[in-house]
Amino acid sequence: MNTMIRVPEAELEAGILAALRAAGAEEGCAAAATRAMMHASRCGVDSHGARLTAHYAAMLRSGRVNPVPRFDIRRTGDATALLHADHGLGHAAAYSGMELACELARQCGIGAVGIVGSSHYGAAGAYALAGAEAGFIALCTTNSDAVVAPHDGRARFHGTNPIAAAAPVPNQKPWLLDMATSSIPLNRVHLYRTLGLALADGVAADGSGEPTTDPNATEMLIPLGGTGYGFKGAGLAGLVTLLSAVLVGGSLDSRCIPMTGTDDIATPRNIGHFCLAIDPVRFVGREAYDALITQYLADLRGAPARPGKMILAPGDREWAVEAERRRDGIPIDPETAAFLKLRKPHVSDL
Amino acid sequence: MNTMIRVPEAELEAGILAALRAAGAEEGCAAAATRAMMHASRCGVDSHGARLTAHYAAMLRSGRVNPVPRFDIRRTGDATALLHADHGLGHAAAYSGMELACELARQCGIGAVGIVGSSHYGAAGAYALAGAEAGFIALCTTNSDAVVAPHDGRARFHGTNPIAAAAPVPNQKPWLLDMATSSIPLNRVHLYRTLGLALADGVAADGSGEPTTDPNATEMLIPLGGTGYGFKGAGLAGLVTLLSAVLVGGSLDSRCIPMTGTDDIATPRNIGHFCLAIDPVRFVGREAYDALITQYLADLRGAPARPGKMILAPGDREWAVEAERRRDGIPIDPETAAFLKLRKPHVSDL
Repeated sequence: MNTMIRVPEAELEAGILAALRAAGAEEGCAAAATRAMMHASRCGVDSHGARLTAHYAAMLRSGRVNPVPRFDIRRTGDATALLHADHGLGHAAAYSGMELACELARQCGIGAVGIVGSSHYGAAGAYALAGAEAGFIALCTTNSDAVVAPHDGRARFHGTNPIAAAAPVPNQKPWLLDMATSSIPLNRVHLYRTLGLALADGVAADGSGEPTTDPNATEMLIPLGGTGYGFKGAGLAGLVTLLSAVLVGGSLDSRCIPMTGTDDIATPRNIGHFCLAIDPVRFVGREAYDALITQYLADLRGAPARPGKMILAPGDREWAVEAERRRDGIPIDPETAAFLKLRKPHVSDL
Repeated sequence: MNTMIRVPEAELEAGILAALRAAGAEEGCAAAATRAMMHASRCGVDSHGARLTAHYAAMLRSGRVNPVPRFDIRRTGDATALLHADHGLGHAAAYSGMELACELARQCGIGAVGIVGSSHYGAAGAYALAGAEAGFIALCTTNSDAVVAPHDGRARFHGTNPIAAAAPVPNQKPWLLDMATSSIPLNRVHLYRTLGLALADGVAADGSGEPTTDPNATEMLIPLGGTGYGFKGAGLAGLVTLLSAVLVGGSLDSRCIPMTGTDDIATPRNIGHFCLAIDPVRFVGREAYDALITQYLADLRGAPARPGKMILAPGDREWAVEAERRRDGIPIDPETAAFLKLRKPHVSDL
């Protein structure tokens, strides 16, 4: 494997921000994308962390992503809004959208913001987390270009279409679920090719849609649930497309320009997102909510585990990684370190 | 296998309604439960159809379910409400909750209604469907008593906690997803015991949490995603618990009186539900929404399938079954037919 280097959080953050500024990104957009990538890098979601900086910088320069977008925000109802992201970095649009959804929820009990004319926004969990940190049960979804077959299909149709949800927990880090609706991300296929490892059963398929464990033969992913129950993962992927693209007017997954592996890096992709915030105060009330979520999580974490296993609540793994990386630095691959011009003296071998 | 009998729709409906009335159910509750069970029976969701009438009738008589509830509906925000179901039949509460969520969405763009003090409500899809038929993208969830292990767990913790979602489609039946967050329902285990069949891999576990395909050894279900990716199904089950119980003040799954197999049939279970309605008019607009959902479904149904397979959109199987059963009658098991006093002359062997 490549040698990873450990980089202190503050230095990585400065490196990402500088690279996005250098690519022309307006200050708010650069800050939002940095914040989202830092969330992913800190929590161990490395596929959506610092390593994407080079991609975003290239897209800012090539014309696909507008470095100086002007968001058009229309309040369409007491509790709803539509945000046109002017083809800027999706991170800024999604943080703005979630912030507005929270404000609408503060006013009305629930708020939803649809985002259209956007681009790749990294880890969906970053925005759900922002909603939970503001005190709301928050959901955020995005569609993406097609890499997952429909159930029983033999061609790419849906994106990995994540569902992210987060909920505030008193005196603890939020409950945080951030899951693709495929079993694995396409990145894992590429990694396993490099490593010469076989994939798990029922997560990937060859060019004719037949399940394969060979990463070199893999042409598409199989939805969560595998060959037997993939209709559920495909249904959830469709729900994400409905909320993130159909509802807001974004590109359908199967008609969306691919994120990578295409010559077209100048045309905006019109990705859509959906942000939802729910105020517990308007339901059971804050005090009862706090008691119930605390009880639920204590029950879950205390549930009996199989030998050698631990029961983790969604987010528990991420928060443990975050604590470790805040202490020891964030592991960064050499290419990304070089792109971000990270200084050698602060770096040690992993 | 038992001999099923085919019963005309109208006759089955009358039989269910009469049985609920005879058990003391107030007219609105009896009508709502009948409507929900007829949806399930027509669409082939037989586990949640007419066969549950005898269970509901017993619970109405035993004190667990209040036959004459008075709903307490509090408008808690411009776009939110909380409905206390007074321990009546969950069906009536959920139809009322979804109807109110749609009214709130009509006013505010989105509406959410939490339901507490409720009971088993049958197929979650019935209520999402009602929302879609009113023109909204609708979601409905319910928690239930624990039968599914956490990921890596060795005891029941979550209910099968369904996620139901539906969306209107112009000139077509709605897109309709109604999925448990386990791979299979517990009913299937019981059925496979009777049939002497082995279960699929990774859907069920024995008393120590070890995966088993033996229905006789099965003590709990494994979340959607199986032993490898069950953290996703478990996370979704948790999201359902958060929305349906924690947010509204319902019983946590693991602390909820079991639906069956308990001596306690006199204590209300305090099940919770969550209803959400989103108005496409307040996002991309009706015309563009109609065009996009039509395009999406045409693309999905037209996507290339594996040999001998068909690509179905969520709901397609259900609508095909419905058409067939409207024509040929609804297959009913002999015990249910006897309980409902269905008349012989209208019945033919399956």
